[in-house]
Amino acid sequence: VSDGDSELDLHAADITFHKPQRPDLVVYPSSTDEVSRVMAIASERRVPVTPFGAGSSLEGHVIPTSGGISLDLSRLDRIVEIALDDLSATVQAGVTRLALERAAGEHGLFFPVDPGADATLGGMAATNAAGTTTIRYGKMRANVLGLEAVLADGSIVRTGGRARKSSAGYDLTSLLVGSEGTLAVITEVRVRLYGIPEHVVAQRISFPTLEAACRTAAAVVAAGSAVSRLELLDAWTLAAINAYRGTDYHEGPCLLVEAAGTEATVEADLELVRELAEADGATEIVDERDPTARARLWAARHDATYAAAAASPGRSERATDTCVPVSELAGAVAFARAELERLGLDGAILGHAGDGNVHVSLQLDPDDPAELALADEFVQRLIADALARGGTCTGEHGIGLGKIAALELEHGDLVPLMRGIKDVFDPLGIMNPGKVFTPREER
Amino acid sequence: VSDGDSELDLHAADITFHKPQRPDLVVYPSSTDEVSRVMAIASERRVPVTPFGAGSSLEGHVIPTSGGISLDLSRLDRIVEIALDDLSATVQAGVTRLALERAAGEHGLFFPVDPGADATLGGMAATNAAGTTTIRYGKMRANVLGLEAVLADGSIVRTGGRARKSSAGYDLTSLLVGSEGTLAVITEVRVRLYGIPEHVVAQRISFPTLEAACRTAAAVVAAGSAVSRLELLDAWTLAAINAYRGTDYHEGPCLLVEAAGTEATVEADLELVRELAEADGATEIVDERDPTARARLWAARHDATYAAAAASPGRSERATDTCVPVSELAGAVAFARAELERLGLDGAILGHAGDGNVHVSLQLDPDDPAELALADEFVQRLIADALARGGTCTGEHGIGLGKIAALELEHGDLVPLMRGIKDVFDPLGIMNPGKVFTPREER
Repeated sequence: VSDGDSELDLHAADITFHKPQRPDLVVYPSSTDEVSRVMAIASERRVPVTPFGAGSSLEGHVIPTSGGISLDLSRLDRIVEIALDDLSATVQAGVTRLALERAAGEHGLFFPVDPGADATLGGMAATNAAGTTTIRYGKMRANVLGLEAVLADGSIVRTGGRARKSSAGYDLTSLLVGSEGTLAVITEVRVRLYGIPEHVVAQRISFPTLEAACRTAAAVVAAGSAVSRLELLDAWTLAAINAYRGTDYHEGPCLLVEAAGTEATVEADLELVRELAEADGATEIVDERDPTARARLWAARHDATYAAAAASPGRSERATDTCVPVSELAGAVAFARAELERLGLDGAILGHAGDGNVHVSLQLDPDDPAELALADEFVQRLIADALARGGTCTGEHGIGLGKIAALELEHGDLVPLMRGIKDVFDPLGIMNPGKVFTPREER
Repeated sequence: VSDGDSELDLHAADITFHKPQRPDLVVYPSSTDEVSRVMAIASERRVPVTPFGAGSSLEGHVIPTSGGISLDLSRLDRIVEIALDDLSATVQAGVTRLALERAAGEHGLFFPVDPGADATLGGMAATNAAGTTTIRYGKMRANVLGLEAVLADGSIVRTGGRARKSSAGYDLTSLLVGSEGTLAVITEVRVRLYGIPEHVVAQRISFPTLEAACRTAAAVVAAGSAVSRLELLDAWTLAAINAYRGTDYHEGPCLLVEAAGTEATVEADLELVRELAEADGATEIVDERDPTARARLWAARHDATYAAAAASPGRSERATDTCVPVSELAGAVAFARAELERLGLDGAILGHAGDGNVHVSLQLDPDDPAELALADEFVQRLIADALARGGTCTGEHGIGLGKIAALELEHGDLVPLMRGIKDVFDPLGIMNPGKVFTPREER
């Protein structure tokens, strides 16, 4: 337990524009039993508890807006089991993505969900994280087989099981995945593993316009292709990456594609993408067959946020996360570009094109209230446009602090049910209050 | 609305050993609005409502054990949309699997979840149905993108959206899928579609023992193979099928395998299965490359239940549905065989080997209480064994009427949370009372 200034500051913020706020205490349990004891005490004294993993959340989830305890789960860092026969791993909540990658990799296996940051598996489950490989492998929810969690009153429960399927009652695994720490503290996660594909090739495809790149992405998805990555980057982002990493990628709208499997399936997948891209006027198609070049490409993609920050000194980032049906992607991106121009905002457009999930990364002057207000307007307009296209306000970042009003817009009919469920799990309202919904007292 | 004897009888039973019980009324709404009006009236008068699809449920879900209204959704039979660009279909709850297959097939697409019976999509969603292709495509939950549902009070809600992914609040889609009509009436379902594979080959593999077949199945799964079907049948079932359909399949333990994709991937998948099967002592491996022979094989597999009934005149079936980690499958099947022998019961063993899901189909004399008691004992022992192996009491049939005690055994820690959720959705307890949990008044 710590109440030192540096510890409190480290647990006051995530990596976004959301205003930091300190907890009263940071507690570092080293076992599920200790989590249980902390929760029992917190319940007894009605102290808010905000679970904390790696702090890489993108919507303020880990900010203890009501003070109380920041429950740092990083000491729950044990890989409990790699089950080779069942292609699954059981890990404690504080195990990070890269730690699991190392452990699974020794057996020729890997875990596919990759949000970029070296997040903890508990945090990734709590936020239903996604990443560049979601087009093929799905988000966390599709890859979590079961959970151990501690309820607000300290009781320990287990969802799911070791079998590949079950119809035993309501699906509480899927309910806890994505509940953002508002229902329970996830202490252990069992996930699917996959064999590392024998053959992997990446492709960089340049297009005359961002919309043409989106049309190709939609065509690839409509064709039912099994590509493992299908990413969109704009010229702004590629220029920032080149400056940040010293690369010399063509600085125009592009798709980054990856195919993985046997040599035959990979070549067939890439050939299809090539044909579709050429039909949309692709200006350059470069296959990255060398593992080093491929690794460099994806490292560059993962560094896009840091590159954007480096390219915008003194400015702070605010990223949107709308997701639309892939058939609507080109229209949604065109709308975003037009709005950026209309409002005179500076921003990059990139995203998981294969999922229809676009991030507009606004680079804002934190001391310019007028610009911040324009950013608010931009975000609202983008969300309204996504909803009108049958999409969602958040493809992967979650509701957290920043999208509470958007959730009401998108699922106003469901929010009362969600609140009711919250009350079942957390009758005292101590579990990460102020996230997903406005807290009880503000209703 | 009908209260005629034949209508009441048709809605009194599913296709299992569970005792029929008549509703007081059968109501046939033809729109979501009519469902809403029925529910509003039912709420006002506190009348139990049991949703009814095709009546092909396997755990008593549609039996109105408290009387009231059987809500027959078969008139909600409209295919609302086939979205080619987004590979999805939106259908009303009463649309059957084969109707969707016809509509999607016109576009070269198909919906993979196939429980055998021509169930309704609403019923399949409500029970989280699975089938022979689950090993590759997952159960209903993995394939439902969103739902329209009517709550107990008559209000209409929509979950999910048209985008391929979302992190907008708690996952109520996954919660309603598999809730067995106890939380809401599902009126519309949006599902994923897939391209019909260009090349499909089936394989029949005979083994000296059922356990050897299970070991091969486990090895195929551990290798991460993409086979689309991996089914287990015992000698008893094959003999019944041969008698019922006039086929001449070898009457010994076997695996039925299907690979689907391009010619190259199919041949690679089958070659891997062949190698693993030979290592486990397979005695015969027959490829069914001819589409007619292949269709005959799967029709025979789907008819297994009817064949078993025909082979056992005057007896009634009771089927188990345990599911274990695939690595435990051989052990679980050996245990089931030993228990059948110890108790002197007559039963076939078959199942979805690739999922670790085994059905022991007991053929019982309905007038022999001693035999029925032995069957009870057998079922309890099998469930206890499955749970000890990290498995579940139900891989796909659900809890319904028959596994309420088993759910307590398996997830006793979660049942209070499930009950709490039930109370949020259905505070008056009128939604399919007596399923999943004991009804409120019996607590």
